[in-house]
Order: sequence, then C-alpha cells, then structure tokens
Amino acid sequence: MTDVTLGLPIVVGHAGVRVVPLERPRDSTLFGFMGSNVSSEKPKAVSLQAVADTIRAMRAEGKKILLVGGPAIVHTGSAGHVARLIRDGWVQTLFAGNALATHDIEQALYGTSLGVSLTKGEAIEHGHEHHLRTINTIRRLGGIRPAVVAGVLTSGIMYECVRADVETVLAGSIRDDGPLPEVITDTMQAQARMRQALHGVGFALMIATALHSIATGNLLPAWVKVVCVDINPATVTKLADRGTFQTVGLVTDVEPFLRSLASELSGGG
Amino acid sequence: MTDVTLGLPIVVGHAGVRVVPLERPRDSTLFGFMGSNVSSEKPKAVSLQAVADTIRAMRAEGKKILLVGGPAIVHTGSAGHVARLIRDGWVQTLFAGNALATHDIEQALYGTSLGVSLTKGEAIEHGHEHHLRTINTIRRLGGIRPAVVAGVLTSGIMYECVRADVETVLAGSIRDDGPLPEVITDTMQAQARMRQALHGVGFALMIATALHSIATGNLLPAWVKVVCVDINPATVTKLADRGTFQTVGLVTDVEPFLRSLASELSGGG
Amino acid sequence: MTDVTLGLPIVVGHAGVRVVPLERPRDSTLFGFMGSNVSSEKPKAVSLQAVADTIRAMRAEGKKILLVGGPAIVHTGSAGHVARLIRDGWVQTLFAGNALATHDIEQALYGTSLGVSLTKGEAIEHGHEHHLRTINTIRRLGGIRPAVVAGVLTSGIMYECVRADVETVLAGSIRDDGPLPEVITDTMQAQARMRQALHGVGFALMIATALHSIATGNLLPAWVKVVCVDINPATVTKLADRGTFQTVGLVTDVEPFLRSLASELSGGG
Amino acid sequence: MTDVTLGLPIVVGHAGVRVVPLERPRDSTLFGFMGSNVSSEKPKAVSLQAVADTIRAMRAEGKKILLVGGPAIVHTGSAGHVARLIRDGWVQTLFAGNALATHDIEQALYGTSLGVSLTKGEAIEHGHEHHLRTINTIRRLGGIRPAVVAGVLTSGIMYECVRADVETVLAGSIRDDGPLPEVITDTMQAQARMRQALHGVGFALMIATALHSIATGNLLPAWVKVVCVDINPATVTKLADRGTFQTVGLVTDVEPFLRSLASELSGGG
Repeated sequence: MTDVTLGLPIVVGHAGVRVVPLERPRDSTLFGFMGSNVSSEKPKAVSLQAVADTIRAMRAEGKKILLVGGPAIVHTGSAGHVARLIRDGWVQTLFAGNALATHDIEQALYGTSLGVSLTKGEAIEHGHEHHLRTINTIRRLGGIRPAVVAGVLTSGIMYECVRADVETVLAGSIRDDGPLPEVITDTMQAQARMRQALHGVGFALMIATALHSIATGNLLPAWVKVVCVDINPATVTKLADRGTFQTVGLVTDVEPFLRSLASELSGGG
Repeated sequence: MTDVTLGLPIVVGHAGVRVVPLERPRDSTLFGFMGSNVSSEKPKAVSLQAVADTIRAMRAEGKKILLVGGPAIVHTGSAGHVARLIRDGWVQTLFAGNALATHDIEQALYGTSLGVSLTKGEAIEHGHEHHLRTINTIRRLGGIRPAVVAGVLTSGIMYECVRADVETVLAGSIRDDGPLPEVITDTMQAQARMRQALHGVGFALMIATALHSIATGNLLPAWVKVVCVDINPATVTKLADRGTFQTVGLVTDVEPFLRSLASELSGGG
Repeated sequence: MTDVTLGLPIVVGHAGVRVVPLERPRDSTLFGFMGSNVSSEKPKAVSLQAVADTIRAMRAEGKKILLVGGPAIVHTGSAGHVARLIRDGWVQTLFAGNALATHDIEQALYGTSLGVSLTKGEAIEHGHEHHLRTINTIRRLGGIRPAVVAGVLTSGIMYECVRADVETVLAGSIRDDGPLPEVITDTMQAQARMRQALHGVGFALMIATALHSIATGNLLPAWVKVVCVDINPATVTKLADRGTFQTVGLVTDVEPFLRSLASELSGGG
Repeated sequence: MTDVTLGLPIVVGHAGVRVVPLERPRDSTLFGFMGSNVSSEKPKAVSLQAVADTIRAMRAEGKKILLVGGPAIVHTGSAGHVARLIRDGWVQTLFAGNALATHDIEQALYGTSLGVSLTKGEAIEHGHEHHLRTINTIRRLGGIRPAVVAGVLTSGIMYECVRADVETVLAGSIRDDGPLPEVITDTMQAQARMRQALHGVGFALMIATALHSIATGNLLPAWVKVVCVDINPATVTKLADRGTFQTVGLVTDVEPFLRSLASELSGGG
C-alpha cells in the first residue's frame, strides 16, 4: 500500500473480484489437523512431525524457509538448535531484531544471555556487562559479518547466517540498545527489505515474537503457510485478530520444540 | 548509552558507586500492597483507588503523568475514557504507536476499529476500508494537528492531545500501515524524542503494550513509579525480566480499568 | 450415563438419529457477535450489555439463571456485586464449592479473604486465622442457614442465597478445608444434585472456575446458553476442548465485569 | 485440621513457636536458580537437568517420588514417557483423577484420547465412543488391577502402576464420567488417603493439574520439595497464592518435558 504510484492498475469497488479463500486441506497434514483451536492440549509429537514434513516438502519444491524469531530463542537456550538448522540448510531467510542478534552473539562470546549463564541458569557476577560489551565489540569491528571475518564471532545463529549466506533482515525497534550496525533503524526501510526478502518463501516459521510475526503476517501473501510457535496463546490469537488467517498456532515451549525440530531434520540428538 | 561522547564523566569498574535501591514503602499505598506477585486474584477496586490516588498526588506535586498505550485501548472501546482523562488534565505525555493513533482516529471518523463497530461489537460491511481511508484522510491533510485544525477530527484520544497540548511521541514499528505523518519511523530518533519527553514525568501508566512499555522502561529513571496494566500476566513478567523493577503489575482488563479511572478522577459515570 | 438402568430406551448405533446442531444466530445479540475467537481485544461494554440483555430476556421468559462461581469472586472483591444480583432476583441457582462459600463468609464476618483485607488489599495481622475461625463458626452452628437464622451471618453471597431461597449446590473437592456442613463431599452425589437443579435453567453464567464450569458443562443440555467469564483464556479453551460448544467466552476481569453487571441489572452504581 | 480430636496437644496463641522458614539454598541447584519468578524465558535444558538431578538424589536417599498428574499428560501424547519413568522405578506414588486414568486406558486400548488419535492428531470416526467403552470395559472387569490381571490392559501409566506397585490415589471430582472403580468419590476420604500416602515422599512433581496440585500442596509438609510444571503460568501463581511456597514453577510444555526427563533418567531416546 505504501508503494502505490500513479498509473498502477488497482482493483477498486465492492463488486469486482471474487476471491476464493485458501482452503485448508482436510487430510492428515499439519494444516489438516490443527488450526481450529488455540489449545495447548494436543498431541505434541504429531505437530512437530508435521512441521518437519512441511519444511522437507517445501525444500524439495525449491521453496525457501523463513524463520521469524524473537530473543526468547536465546534466553531459553535454543540458539544452538537454530544454528544447527541453519548450518544444515533448513533456513534460507531470517527476520529478527537487534535483541535476538545481540543475545545470540553474547552467548557466543560469553556463554550468557543478558548476563544469565545458559549452562547454569543463573546470573553471573558482572554478567550484566556482557550485553554492552557485546554491542561495543561488534560495533567496533563494523558489524556482524566483519566480526565473523575477523574470527571474533565463531558460533551461534548470526555466525551460521553469515556462513550460509542466509538472507537476514534485522529490523529496528524502540526497545533496542546499540543497535548493531546491521539493524535497519527506519521501520519503513525495514519493511521494504522484508517485502523483497519474501520472494520465493514457501513456509514461515514464527518463533516467540509478536512484533516481528505480526509485521511479517502483514506482508505475506495468503499462499505462504505459516506456523506460529509460542508458549503464550495470546500471541497466536493476536496474529489471527490482525488478519493472518493462514497461521497454524502451536502453543508449546520454544526450546524443546527447536531441539526436536533440529533432531528430526538434521539427525542425531 | 547511545549518546556517550568523548570527555563525558562516567563511573567505571566494579567497586565504585554504592546504589541504594529504591525502597518499596510498606504502608497502605499502591506500592505497599502490590508488586510481590503477578496475580489476577487481588482486590481490584483497591488497586484502582491506589492508582487514582498516586496520580492525584503526583499532579499536586506538579509532576507529569505519562501514558504509554497500545491499540487494545481502542479495540476494547476505551478511547473515550482516555480522551476524558486527557481533557481533564490527567495526562501530560503520551507514548504510543501508529496503531493506537490510527484506530483512535478511525473510531472518531467511522465509529469502528479495524472495521469492527465499537457500539455493536461486530464487523461492519465494507468496514475493512475504514482503516485505509483513515490513514489516507490524515495523510492528505498533512497530519493529525492539521486534521483537528481543519475540523475533520473532532473527538478521541489524538484530538484531545492536540487540544490539550499533550506532549506526544508516536514511535514507528515494522507493523505499521501508512504510517501517519507524525509517526517517527526511525527508532533511534523516536527513542531520543521519548528520552527528552520524560523530563518532569513522575508517574507512568502503561496500558496494554509490551513493545512501548519495555522501550519506556529502558529509558525511565528508577525513581519514576510505574504501573503496568495488562490482561496478560506475561507482559508484566517480561517487563520485570528486562529490568524495570519499579513496576507494579495490574493483571486486569483495560476497558473497565480505564472507565473506572476516568470516573474516579473526572467524576460522573 | 451413570444412571442408565435396564429397560431404559436408548438410541444406539451410528446411523440412527439426525441431530441438528444449535445454530448460532447471526444477529446483533451476544451469541451473534462473539464466540468465534477467545480474544481479550473486543469491545467490552458491548459484551456486558449483551449478557445483561440475555439475562433480562431469560427472566422475562420465566427461565432460571444459573451462576457457577469460583473463589476469585471473593478474592477480587466482587462478593458484594454478586450479593446484590441475588438480592434483586437475577440468580435462581448457584453452583460453587467450599472455597467460594468459606471466603464469602470470611469476608462477611471479618472483612478479609484468606486473611487479606478487601478494603486495604493487604494481609491483616493474624488474618490467616480468619479462614479457620470462619469454618469453625459455621460448623459449630450447624451450617450456613442456621448461621443466618442465628443472626451471625448477615451479609454476602451465601446470606443472600439463604434469604432468596436460591437453589444452591456446594460440591466438594479435594482442595477443601473443613468443609462447611452444606458441602456435598461425594462427587457423584454432588453431580446428581447439580443435574436435578438444572431443570428450568435457561442461561448459565460461569465465573472464574474451571472445575465447576467443566462439570456443569458436562451436565447442561445443548440449548442452555452459556457465558464463561475468566481473565485466563485457557479456561475458555478448556471448556471448548471438552465439548461445551455453546459457550461464549469473555476474557475479562471478574470484578469490574460483575460490578458493571450489577449496575446494569440492579441500577445505581 | 479435620482430624483434630480431644486431648491432642496443639500449639495455640500468637507468641508460641518460632518457625524457621525453609531456606532456599543459594547454590547452583534447582532451588537455587529458579523460583523467584514465574517466567517462561529461562534456559530450559538447565531446569530439566536440575529436576533429574533432584530425583536421583532423593532416590539415593531412599525417599519416594510423588507424581501428581492431570489428563493433559495423555492428551499431549506423554503417557508413554510417564509409563517408562514408572517402569524404571522413578515414581513411587501417584496422585491423579478419573480423567488421567480413563484417558490413559483409552489410549492403551484404542490409541486415542477422547477420540483423538495420538499418532495422527485427529479425531477418529466414532472415536468419541472410545471414552465410554473404556470406562465400561474397566467397570465390567471390576477395576484397573483386574483388567491388568485379565490381560486386557497391557500398557500405559495405570498398567505400569499396577505392575510396579506404585501407591496410587485416584481422587474423584465433579467432572468425572463413570468413574472407574478405583476412584475415591468422597473428597474427604480421598484427602485422608492422600495424607497417608505422603509418608516417605521427598519430592513432588506436579504436572498439568491445578486441582490435584493445590490439594496436594495443602497436605505437604514444608520440607518436601515441589516442582510444578505447567504451560500456563497462572497455575503456578495460584499454587503460590494459596500458600505452597516451596514450589518451584517451570513454565514449559508437558510432552517435551516428560520425554526429556524419561530420556535423562532412563537413558536412550
């Protein structure tokens, strides 16, 4: 809508176009059995299997997988699982914010997320500095990619994105500290970049972020399947309230979900 | 942190400054009886009374009241209550986003919020157009203030803000449609404006927005009291997880809370 | 099902009876505009009005109103609102447990709920005794009705139920302290009493209790309209998961809801 | 309290006994790092590890492990994980209700839970009958143990409890269908049985049940450590609101939690 220009052909009026809504197939796939209800009381292993099958099928058709992720991925200790998914080619596009990137790099450099040790689960003494030191380190080096090239950043989600040339859009928000150089602080520019990056995406996995999920939902064409994973049922309800109807909501915990998904798609345990 | 410049005196090291944490008074005030627990099962009329008393006391001391609000204020039919609070001088500063402003103006112009009638509770035929028509109307006029001056916008939250010279910061987000001309799309500029606008604020009331509440929490000095009202306990937990410890959480529904607050502060019913 | 006896005519097999599901009217009533979605972001005043209208219409048809309530009614300071609804004839049947009755009588005798003052919102010194003293007082007198007759219990929900001859079923649960003499500790007997008490009920208002709401939902015929009010969307989802499909869920806070309902139905403020 | 008899020595008054509250150790154990906050955003693998370590330590000291479980264990497809924990000696006592037992036996006999296939995640045609057929089958045989002896029930949680002589209390509730013969329908009798069965218990794991968790919390001495696992943070908040302060809350999804716990304690995957 923001890019409408004079001369563009646009359908107007109330009687013009018949839209056939995307039908949810009634078979045993993910979109067959789920979706009616935002409930946490469903067989969880089946949902996981269905998401993995959908991702495999999309990749077999040559379509891209988009991951939209929030910082809880790192807080819950799931950055390693996502890194593995990226390394093994299961993610082609990443939409996130400054927080996900910063916390991910903090855990790669210091083993903490906002100062909380991800192996012990407790705040480390002086750990609160790690957040700012991380931001300063990356800013001094000129960004995430330079930090990888310089050998400073050697693991984690952002590292694997650089290595695998995952198309990454880090969109700014008013919550941001720093931010990291790659973050697009102008929200309209960020939207434009997200819109471009959606070409070729066949499946979107939204994990633990209301802001980026709703923003992506606004931009997605109706034929792209969406699975929204959040422990909070309100996030899924909000997405549907705002018009992203093709979304299947999975009310589950992010860490075990991502651990199992990485296990299922990349093998091992 | 983003404004640090060479020559600025800054305390460093781990042994330097003794900070005496803000003590929560143990008397019968809002901050005495609440706060220990994010529970929805507390006497609600007492909480409401305590918020009203705090606002009155702050105003008597000449301090400003900051309202940080999300779009659910309009969706739940509470825009009229907030408009009344502003008209009667109970809000000096407003932090919000494009969504709150757009939905508020839509209900002022069309009586709907995202096409849903606020008097009937149902979607109006062709009501989905109201959102875009609202944005186009305001953009064509050059903004919210021009729309008030032109006599097009004659009621609602944004109208009262213009009338009462409430300092308003509309910060952009990647979810935005439009956005309205007043929205600051660059998130760092928006942060800077929010930081300036906090001078003189003695009390912050955060209503139904995780994004703007966390962003404001990052900027607030520790002596500003904060009450965060949300029907979802996770929003309050997130604020505390991210370091806004002076926050008292009220797990309640926004519409009746704001209706009662307007009633209490402005009289009548 | 538990009362099936030899000789009872019962429909069996898969091909026998065509059931026409209760249609939700698509007009502007409560059951027209709500129900699709367990969302907290809806116009709240409209929902309240719709519940009040439904209750008035049911009473005009001579049908009974059933209130199913949990102890949060008392904890949130709403016992007075419910007492007023009962006094004015808006409730004919009450299903609750030992907790609601005990906390209600505690607040009538001591002004506290589990030792928390409902006017100050804080724990009273030695207030934890009130709960046990309440139970002992009522047990010594032989029950709630004797306590009313003796002039010991003179206000509150249970008092008004005795005065207005509201058909009351207090069903036992394994959480109970005491319990009060009126509590039916055998769950099958309690079910049987609830089943009997449902004759003539045309509308059920379920407030802040998963246990009693699901139990009642199991017993209700499909033509009885149900509104379930809970601040926790999961309670409404659970009801639907377990087959009570005619339920309209209102995700809102109990105290302001009941205050407004009493105001709307009984006048005044 | 319900068992007080004449002649029993009881401490009375307000000045009598100094109680030293159970201190939470500040080391790296489960009870050191958790508990301050009901947050879903914590490192999940650490929590899991801490629960497993606590269970192993308790068993090494010869103390019993109590599992308090709700029907969502079966709905989410976790019955197999719990069965494995029981088979391998990690559970000595089970508190549950008619629903857990009935759904568990339904999945053992028919592969469904309330008619929903646990391998496909969808409702099976005529699957709604399975629930009643399960209840009828067990009632006809005289109970769960007879069904195991008769070779009819050959897998699942209840089967393993019979095999391993796990002390099981199935407490009745007004929601119950049937119920199964082993269910104690009188709530006071059920409480008495639960109280007896708590002797020797050193650790309680409460999974996805508010009713049974709060009831058990009422009976537990303060030295028994409790971990409450629920995807809904409100359940943990309710436990604390009602006085079970020694509880550590884990806001996570039941199925992956139990799968990982079985994996950790019993090996394999």
